[in-house]
Amino acid sequence: MTSLSPISRAAAIGGGVIGGGWIARFLLAGIDVAVFDPHPEAQRIVAEVIANAERAYGLLTGAPLPQRGRLTFAASVAEAVKDAQWVQESVPERLDLKRRVLAEIDAAAAPDALIGSSTSGLKPTELQEGLSHPERLFVAHPYNPVYLLPLVEIVGGTATTPATVARAREVLDAIGMKGVVIAREIEAFVGDRLLEALWREALWLIKDDICDVETLDDVIRYSFGLRWAQMGLFQTYRIAGGEAGMRHFLAQFGPCLHWPWTKLTDVVDLDEALVEKIGAQSDAQAAGLSIRELERIRDENLVGIVQALKAGQGGRGWGAGALLGDFERRLWAAAGGERESAPEIGAPLALHEARVSPAWIDYNGHMTEHRYLQVFGDATDALLRLIGVDLAYVEAGRSYYTVETHIRHLDEARLGEALKVTTQLLAVDGKRLHLFHRLFAGEGREIATAEQMLLHVDTKAGRAVPAPEAVLAKLSPIAQAHARLAVPEGAGRSVGAKKLAEAV
Amino acid sequence: MTSLSPISRAAAIGGGVIGGGWIARFLLAGIDVAVFDPHPEAQRIVAEVIANAERAYGLLTGAPLPQRGRLTFAASVAEAVKDAQWVQESVPERLDLKRRVLAEIDAAAAPDALIGSSTSGLKPTELQEGLSHPERLFVAHPYNPVYLLPLVEIVGGTATTPATVARAREVLDAIGMKGVVIAREIEAFVGDRLLEALWREALWLIKDDICDVETLDDVIRYSFGLRWAQMGLFQTYRIAGGEAGMRHFLAQFGPCLHWPWTKLTDVVDLDEALVEKIGAQSDAQAAGLSIRELERIRDENLVGIVQALKAGQGGRGWGAGALLGDFERRLWAAAGGERESAPEIGAPLALHEARVSPAWIDYNGHMTEHRYLQVFGDATDALLRLIGVDLAYVEAGRSYYTVETHIRHLDEARLGEALKVTTQLLAVDGKRLHLFHRLFAGEGREIATAEQMLLHVDTKAGRAVPAPEAVLAKLSPIAQAHARLAVPEGAGRSVGAKKLAEAV
Repeated sequence: MTSLSPISRAAAIGGGVIGGGWIARFLLAGIDVAVFDPHPEAQRIVAEVIANAERAYGLLTGAPLPQRGRLTFAASVAEAVKDAQWVQESVPERLDLKRRVLAEIDAAAAPDALIGSSTSGLKPTELQEGLSHPERLFVAHPYNPVYLLPLVEIVGGTATTPATVARAREVLDAIGMKGVVIAREIEAFVGDRLLEALWREALWLIKDDICDVETLDDVIRYSFGLRWAQMGLFQTYRIAGGEAGMRHFLAQFGPCLHWPWTKLTDVVDLDEALVEKIGAQSDAQAAGLSIRELERIRDENLVGIVQALKAGQGGRGWGAGALLGDFERRLWAAAGGERESAPEIGAPLALHEARVSPAWIDYNGHMTEHRYLQVFGDATDALLRLIGVDLAYVEAGRSYYTVETHIRHLDEARLGEALKVTTQLLAVDGKRLHLFHRLFAGEGREIATAEQMLLHVDTKAGRAVPAPEAVLAKLSPIAQAHARLAVPEGAGRSVGAKKLAEAV
Repeated sequence: MTSLSPISRAAAIGGGVIGGGWIARFLLAGIDVAVFDPHPEAQRIVAEVIANAERAYGLLTGAPLPQRGRLTFAASVAEAVKDAQWVQESVPERLDLKRRVLAEIDAAAAPDALIGSSTSGLKPTELQEGLSHPERLFVAHPYNPVYLLPLVEIVGGTATTPATVARAREVLDAIGMKGVVIAREIEAFVGDRLLEALWREALWLIKDDICDVETLDDVIRYSFGLRWAQMGLFQTYRIAGGEAGMRHFLAQFGPCLHWPWTKLTDVVDLDEALVEKIGAQSDAQAAGLSIRELERIRDENLVGIVQALKAGQGGRGWGAGALLGDFERRLWAAAGGERESAPEIGAPLALHEARVSPAWIDYNGHMTEHRYLQVFGDATDALLRLIGVDLAYVEAGRSYYTVETHIRHLDEARLGEALKVTTQLLAVDGKRLHLFHRLFAGEGREIATAEQMLLHVDTKAGRAVPAPEAVLAKLSPIAQAHARLAVPEGAGRSVGAKKLAEAV
């Protein structure tokens, strides 16, 4: 298997919600993680975050993840970090505590190990004080849920070398995250500066009874929240300026800044009464949904949004969706390398697995009809990649197009169920490829079959042409082996040709 | 046709980007709009916004929109508003100008006409001064693009009656928007308060060279922007607090408010140098994409995000997606009313139309394979609704399930193309429904066919049961009429049974 990541061993010091998210990211990218967290329930908490992350990842992508890294719990900071190539510190937000922990890490880690701090506010230069190798320390500030939100703010201190920052970006990129380098260090960096500004104003709006927390949240999520999932503040305003663009927008709206609007010059007193008010309004807003349920809804929504953005720009992807698409292409490439040894061809090929995504579910809680064809299509794509018909092949102007499909539905699939497709070649000739897929859910329940005919085409000329020898040479041994298998039940059927079982 | 909206005539005073968005919302909901805008190019600008809105709506929903309202341009405010039930004022943000225009509207409109102002900052009480019927004036503040973002902040002034606010919400709800009532009026209401707080901080970050506009936008759209498209600030933080919830979160993060982080106490001087700096960085970020291109990308992304949220919560929808789902159900119900006269049954039924959505396109720029089945499935659903198998029927425990489908691909469909399905009944008995769909793109190019067998089932027992008389009575005349039609070419085919044409 081609390695996905430039590192293979990481350490996590602190395994709460943020530390746990980092651990999940590393493990799912095939990186071993040693954890140190003195909390008596650390193992349980980390396991819960990993379970959430695996569920979300399973819904997010059908690309082949590498074998999960090995998770170990160490008895000390020194033990956790001794072999690590990346150490991520995620202990509580107190400068004295962070400095003490970082000094321990610094003393025990290899001199060239990268050390990232999850701090959301402290300046890296302050964290570097007294370290023997401060040049490899930087802030790597992620966002919750770390296993789904790709952003990491990378901030170097005065001692951080450019090589450290470059290497940190490279690792984050390899594990599917988005490392954004902040040019100059300030407390709270960029994201939390913006969040805090908005948060202060929000607290005033609640305190002054302008609205309640549900109204405020609705104002965000039915308007600019939708905008910001795909374009940020400035790109959005650029469009608002119309053809005249950004300068026009600024000229038009700049003066408003001096209007006596916001209360931002004062810091709200978050006293007991205000905490209780927000707490009570938040309870009402949750309408009985538990934190676990809200977490699941949030994660499924995030998956859906990122997948929608992946389909953006005519399939090229946009923002977080383009990032996912790039990551998946690398996963496929890495998995392709793994197949240098030919797959087992004496039986139907097992080339594609998936998981029933939230977006695939209908009102009945079952997988929607057309998603069956999506899964079968993905299995066909996996077969095509196996015989050399990959993205580069298609871009060069040749492809196999599906001309006919016959689907039989035998049972239902439910949210989150594992899906597995096996593929049998029924016939191959110079232009045609005749397949039979079987789809299994859960522990091997057969839920559907699909028989497909594909034609090899010149995509520019728009007509069928013989497939090249290289492709046929890969198909031929599989076709020969599969010719010895029984013709599957259901192949060669036309709709309604045989009386259907009355039990569905 | 059941009327979708409680009003049928609106007036728009001001037809810029915001006014144009309102006009499009009204027209697409079947409401006639009279526009007054003295701008010499008003008609062109409005037409452009409507074209964008129609494109976006076509991608957003396959539900049957009512017949588009009639658009007229009036020579004066008085002429525009004289028959309107809702007057929307969207003139530039100057109190004197708004007051003058509102006085004209007030004098010429029916006393019970609703008057909404699009102001993003002025207090409704100030706008009400001097009006003869101030009780029907309120702020209805939307967000750009108005035709896609559902939020409208409804803010009443001291003279606004509760009945006015209630009626405004009712109209917005009927046209698919989300009217959120702000309890107390303040300048800039809630959304722009939050935006301005963040905007000020963003300007400091750029001015001080902490980051450039692209970095700042990336920080938003790869992290909290994704969160806010589906949950707002408070619900998100509730989850971050873990099982301990909101009060725990506040206790933990409250103190940070007093840290000397943000620059918010100062107002940035948006001088020429800063405007130029932002303008240049924004140009670089756009990377050659024109405003029109960015607008299209933004709209397609918003469509994808809202559709993803519509699929959320196991198909029940979440946030802006649940709102869309509700709107579509009402559109279907209204269109169902229209079919009180039986459809033409002497030919294959034309029950479903759609448009190729951006999320349906693959790398080749063609509609992806499984989307064909989605369109066919939607056509089957339309037939089922016609025979009384609607949501209520399914919720009562009976449904038709597809057990078999045979698809033939004849040609390709491209982004934005209109799609139309015709449906022929091949056979019907007590339990079975045998259909043949033909799919046409653009000006009538046949691109695919689908033959389907459905079984009537008891969904709880999970077995086939005879359909009730009421359903069969609706199917029977169609089946009899269609029995006289020729069996379509391609029906009864098994995969590969007939040599395929070599030109695809």
